[in-house]
Amino acid sequence: MNEIDENINIALLVEYDGTNYSGWQCQKNANSIQDALQDAIFNLTGEKVKLFGCSRTDAGVHAIGHVSNFMIKTKIPIEKFPLALNAYLPKDIAVKSAKIVDKEFNARFSSVGKIYKYNLWNEPTRTAINHKYTYHVPQNLDINAMICAANELVGTHDFATFMATGSQVKSTIRTLYSIDVVKIDNMISMIYHGDGFLYNMVRILSGTILYAGMGKINPFDIKDIILSKNRKRAGKTLPANGLVLEKVFYNPSIFE
Amino acid sequence: MNEIDENINIALLVEYDGTNYSGWQCQKNANSIQDALQDAIFNLTGEKVKLFGCSRTDAGVHAIGHVSNFMIKTKIPIEKFPLALNAYLPKDIAVKSAKIVDKEFNARFSSVGKIYKYNLWNEPTRTAINHKYTYHVPQNLDINAMICAANELVGTHDFATFMATGSQVKSTIRTLYSIDVVKIDNMISMIYHGDGFLYNMVRILSGTILYAGMGKINPFDIKDIILSKNRKRAGKTLPANGLVLEKVFYNPSIFE
Repeated sequence: MNEIDENINIALLVEYDGTNYSGWQCQKNANSIQDALQDAIFNLTGEKVKLFGCSRTDAGVHAIGHVSNFMIKTKIPIEKFPLALNAYLPKDIAVKSAKIVDKEFNARFSSVGKIYKYNLWNEPTRTAINHKYTYHVPQNLDINAMICAANELVGTHDFATFMATGSQVKSTIRTLYSIDVVKIDNMISMIYHGDGFLYNMVRILSGTILYAGMGKINPFDIKDIILSKNRKRAGKTLPANGLVLEKVFYNPSIFE
Repeated sequence: MNEIDENINIALLVEYDGTNYSGWQCQKNANSIQDALQDAIFNLTGEKVKLFGCSRTDAGVHAIGHVSNFMIKTKIPIEKFPLALNAYLPKDIAVKSAKIVDKEFNARFSSVGKIYKYNLWNEPTRTAINHKYTYHVPQNLDINAMICAANELVGTHDFATFMATGSQVKSTIRTLYSIDVVKIDNMISMIYHGDGFLYNMVRILSGTILYAGMGKINPFDIKDIILSKNRKRAGKTLPANGLVLEKVFYNPSIFE
């Protein structure tokens, strides 16, 4: 039996700057990360494949460690894929690693957790170099109140309060293993590790923690806000550009 | 005597992403940082001023702390300048602070030192998010050799070896107070503090330290390379996009 007659399932670890894209997923008349990757795979292999992404990031959202997978028949050694695909990709998308995975593996449904990071830029004047990767907050923030609010959000909860209105989903129960609020110079990052996230959940949670830092929400009201399932009691949905998909977890792990 | 009849000298602390600019200085048919700032000052005050910059950074070079100054008659309180100018500036240029300085102050000639940083991205695959701010080096580097080479370059020397050929300058003697080579994850930064820098000096020094890390230059030949005054014995001029002007020093200091 010749290996090339058999489909293999390849997982890609991809970094991208989402600034100039309409989001991860293919859409008519739009410029998606998925289209760019599928085009590069076609240019390299001559095969039209369909990529399955771990997450449909919105327009403007960035990724350090997005994972996707596709089935293909190919003679190209797997370790050649990253550099070979990068030669066909625009500079703001880079394949970091490629691995052959089980036929059953699906980047979305096999995921057992993700890490997202939301970055604020906190000083009176805006930033020129980091403006595509941060949301500018000019006023002083109470970091302790933000940490306190973050701690109140950790755990297994019904996160219906923190979902974009109108989303369709079977269950709104999710587990947040941790939320770290880290300040380095003028950047404040909120780092979320959870088993899964509802639509816009990280951007709404970040708006809620920000409101705690501004004194607009009392951190000790967070438990009550969770129970309310009332989107209006959470903070605003922060802009997409401050959000980065950092890591996706699988069991067993695929990329170190 | 009415204060508004008197010219005042204003110093600006400016951050910019140099990716989309032809460099600091005004040039015909080009898009310079200086033009953008002078246009913003005109839009705010109605006055056509000439900015004096601390350094003529090349196309693609970035700055966290570029300093420039200009003379103007204005009623606008100095503390209003940063936010007011930022409203007229593109997102990749930001005024961080403005101060009234002595009439004799000149951002270039009053400078007593500068800090520049050159960033390498060191892993086999290129980076999508940092590609505008780093130079990609795929092979393994010997960091100890780089630190060793950096230490050999520190001091007061004739740096003629490390100047773009054809530059006109009275003296090629400069003092490097320190060069720090710092590795954080996949980023290797070379941070230069000196009294002044020749044309392309930081990019050539960075190429030389990089060559030490690649084993192309022996760090213990550096003293001999300095004495040779032979540009060909130094490393290559690394691309502009990895370079950042971090800080300019004045005595007395203007911006904290």
